[in-house]
Amino acid sequence: MVGPTTYFDESTVDRLDARTADLVRRRAAALGPAYRLFYREPLEFVRGERAHLFDADGVDYLDAYNNVPSVGHANPRVVAAIAEQAARLNTHTRYLSEATVAYAERLLATMPMPGEVMFTCTGSEANDLALRVAKAATGGEGVIVSWNAYHGITTEIAGISPSLVGLDGMAPWARAARGPVTDVPFAEAVAASLRELDAAGIRPAALIVDTVFASDGGFPDLEGLVEAVAAVRAAGGLFIADEVQPGFGRLGHGMWGFSRYGIEPDIVTMGKPMANGHPVAAMVARPDVLAPFGRDMRYFNTYGGNSVSIAAASATLDVLEDEQLIENARIVGGRLADGIRGLSDERILAVRGAGLFLGVDLVDEAFTLDVVNALRDRRVLLAASGPGNTTLKIRPPLVFDDADVDRLLTELAAVLASS
Amino acid sequence: MVGPTTYFDESTVDRLDARTADLVRRRAAALGPAYRLFYREPLEFVRGERAHLFDADGVDYLDAYNNVPSVGHANPRVVAAIAEQAARLNTHTRYLSEATVAYAERLLATMPMPGEVMFTCTGSEANDLALRVAKAATGGEGVIVSWNAYHGITTEIAGISPSLVGLDGMAPWARAARGPVTDVPFAEAVAASLRELDAAGIRPAALIVDTVFASDGGFPDLEGLVEAVAAVRAAGGLFIADEVQPGFGRLGHGMWGFSRYGIEPDIVTMGKPMANGHPVAAMVARPDVLAPFGRDMRYFNTYGGNSVSIAAASATLDVLEDEQLIENARIVGGRLADGIRGLSDERILAVRGAGLFLGVDLVDEAFTLDVVNALRDRRVLLAASGPGNTTLKIRPPLVFDDADVDRLLTELAAVLASS
Repeated sequence: MVGPTTYFDESTVDRLDARTADLVRRRAAALGPAYRLFYREPLEFVRGERAHLFDADGVDYLDAYNNVPSVGHANPRVVAAIAEQAARLNTHTRYLSEATVAYAERLLATMPMPGEVMFTCTGSEANDLALRVAKAATGGEGVIVSWNAYHGITTEIAGISPSLVGLDGMAPWARAARGPVTDVPFAEAVAASLRELDAAGIRPAALIVDTVFASDGGFPDLEGLVEAVAAVRAAGGLFIADEVQPGFGRLGHGMWGFSRYGIEPDIVTMGKPMANGHPVAAMVARPDVLAPFGRDMRYFNTYGGNSVSIAAASATLDVLEDEQLIENARIVGGRLADGIRGLSDERILAVRGAGLFLGVDLVDEAFTLDVVNALRDRRVLLAASGPGNTTLKIRPPLVFDDADVDRLLTELAAVLASS
Repeated sequence: MVGPTTYFDESTVDRLDARTADLVRRRAAALGPAYRLFYREPLEFVRGERAHLFDADGVDYLDAYNNVPSVGHANPRVVAAIAEQAARLNTHTRYLSEATVAYAERLLATMPMPGEVMFTCTGSEANDLALRVAKAATGGEGVIVSWNAYHGITTEIAGISPSLVGLDGMAPWARAARGPVTDVPFAEAVAASLRELDAAGIRPAALIVDTVFASDGGFPDLEGLVEAVAAVRAAGGLFIADEVQPGFGRLGHGMWGFSRYGIEPDIVTMGKPMANGHPVAAMVARPDVLAPFGRDMRYFNTYGGNSVSIAAASATLDVLEDEQLIENARIVGGRLADGIRGLSDERILAVRGAGLFLGVDLVDEAFTLDVVNALRDRRVLLAASGPGNTTLKIRPPLVFDDADVDRLLTELAAVLASS
C-alpha cells in the first residue's frame, strides 16, 4: 500500500546536503525500512512554540499539520505539570490515585451517556481494547469500518484499517463499507456490509468510525451515519466512535466529533491530542457494555493512566478550557476555510471540514504532492490525504491564530501562482 | 481467570476508613470492573525516591516490587531530561532527529546480532509488532509460549498469554509448551508443541519467551531453552526474546536475559524500565527478518520514539551505566537471596532468581497471600506470582541498597515469626 506519497524517497539521498544525507543513512541503518520521513527534502526541528516549529538555524516553520500538540508545541502549563509530577511520583493504577479518579470523572462529564474509563497509552491500544470489549459484550465478531479507514497499528486494528493494509489485508471478520468516498450513501453502504457479514455467518460486534473520517478525506457531517448506527444496533452490534482525530474540540463545536450527530456511542476511543504529545489514550464504554469484559478479564496497562500521564492530560484539558480553544478552532478555522475558498483557483475543487480540520480537494495527486512540497519549501507544514492523495489535510494545533491564517493563505496563494 | 490473588476485594470496601472507601467507590464508578487494586487494604502514594514510596502522611514504604522505575523513583537526571526536552520540543519520527538515531544506535550496540529498532509505547505493542514481523518473515502463523506466559494485552498478545486468558482463551494458532512449571524438560515441551502445530497444519512463526519466565515463577537459567530455540528454528520459526521483565540489567549480568544463554535472538522486545516509567518500548529485529514486513507495510506509532520519550530513555540508560546499577543488582540481589535463604524457615521451599529478580517459593497460596499482605502492613511492598500464587516476587528498583536489603530481611523475618 506504499504508493506515491509525500514521503521522502530514500533513493534520492545523495541530493541532500552532507550532514542531512549522513543522518538519513544512519537512520535507515538503525530504524529500518518501515519508517517514513515527510517531504522530498526531510526536516529536522529542534524547538516548538504554539503553532511554530524551528530548525537548528532558527528558521520558523508554520505548523498546519500536527494535531497532537493541540494546545501548542511545548505548552508551558503542560510542561510544568509533567515536570512537577515526574519529580514527585510516577506510578501505576494498582495503587489508589485521587488525581486519576478525578480526571476520569472529568472526562466522563463530557460524555452524553453513562460510562467508565480505561486508560491506555495509544489510540491503537484504545481501539484494540474497544474491539475486545465489543466482542465480549455482543458475542459477535464482525466489525464494519469505512472504505479507507485507519484505526491503528496493532495486529487486530491493522486488520480493520484498509488504508494501511488494503482491502485484501483486512481481517476475515472485518468489512469495509463503500463510503463515504464513493457515491453510495453511507447508510446503504453499511447496510450492504451487514448483509455481507450475515451471508458469511458472522454476527456483527460493532461499527467503528473515525467521526471526522480523516483518512477518507474528512467528512465532519456525514449524511446517513445516524441511520447506519441504528441499523448496526438493530443487528445486535455496537457503535464505537473513534475520536482520536476529531476529539478534544478539533471540530470547533463540542468536545467530540460524534456530538454533531446527537448520537450516544456505546464506546468512545481517544488519543493523540489528549495530553499534548505525552503518550496517553483512553477508552470510555457504557457500564453495561464493559461489564462482560470486566467480569471475565483483568486488564493492566503498565504505563496507562500513570501519575505523569494523568498530570499531562489534566493540564491539557485545563488549557483547552481556559483558553477557549474549541471556540478558537471554530472562528479561526472558519476564517481559514473562507480564505482558501477566496483564492478562487480552479484547481481547488472543494474545501471541506469543520473547525481546524480542513480537507482541501485538489485536481489530482501529482499537483497535490507538488503543493505540499512547495509549501514545505516556503516553511508551511501540511500533508496530502484521502484515498487518492488528492486532499490537502490542514490540521494545526488549536492555538492557530489570525496571523497564522494570514501566513498560510499568503504562502498557499504564492504556491498556486507559481505552479 | 481472576482467582484468589493479592488484589483488593471490593466487597470489603466498608472496612476501609471513610476517605479511602469513598475514593475506592468513586474509582469503581469511574474506571469500571477490569481494574484491580493491590492488597487487602489499598495504598495511595504521593511521592517516591530511590526504592521508597511515601503516602500522604509521609510514611516510608520500601518498594521491593516495582521494576518500572528501575533507576529509582523520580530519578532527578531522568526527570530533568524529560522536563528540558518537553519544554523545547516533543515531535514524532516523520521528521529527522539526531537524538532518536543516536539512541537507536546505542541500543543496537548492546545486541549480539545486527538489528534495526522500531519504537512503540508499550511492551504489548512491541510484542504485537514482533508477531506481525515474525509472521511476515516466515510465512508461518504458529506461536509457542511457556505454560503460564504473559506477554501483554492487545487482542493478538492476550491470545498468547495463558496466564491472562487461560489455555482455553488462547488464539487458535498459539500453543503453550508444558514448561517450565512442570517436570517436563523445556526442550521436550517445546518439541511437543511443534508436533501439535504440525498435526494441526499450522506452520510455526516463532517461539516467544520472557527470558526470565516471570509469570511462570522466575527461571533465569532454564535448562533446555537453547535446544528449544534450535528446534523451532529447524522447523522454520524464529526466536523472540521478550525482555520486558529481565531487560536493562535486572538479572545483574549483562543488559538482557537472553545473554545468559549465548543465544542470538531473531527479535528482541523491551519495555517497562526502558525510560523509568515514561511510556517507551521497542522492538529490535535482524534486518533480514524485518525486511519483508518493512517492504510491504508502513508503520507509524504517533508517540513511539517521540522527542521526550527518547530523552527519557537516553537519560535512563545514562544512569544505569554511570551508577553501575547492573553490578549493583548482582551484588545486592545476591545478598538479598542469601539473606532469605538464611532465614531457614521450612515454609520457604526455594529461593530462585538472579540479580534483583527473585522468586521465593512458599508452601501454599494462602500462606503466600498472608505474607504479602502482612509485609504491606509492615511497609514493605512485594507481590505473589507464579501459576498457583505461591511465589513471592521480589523485583525492586535497581537502586536497592544494603539498608533496603536489611529492612526487607528484618520485616520478612518478623512476618514469618508471627505467621
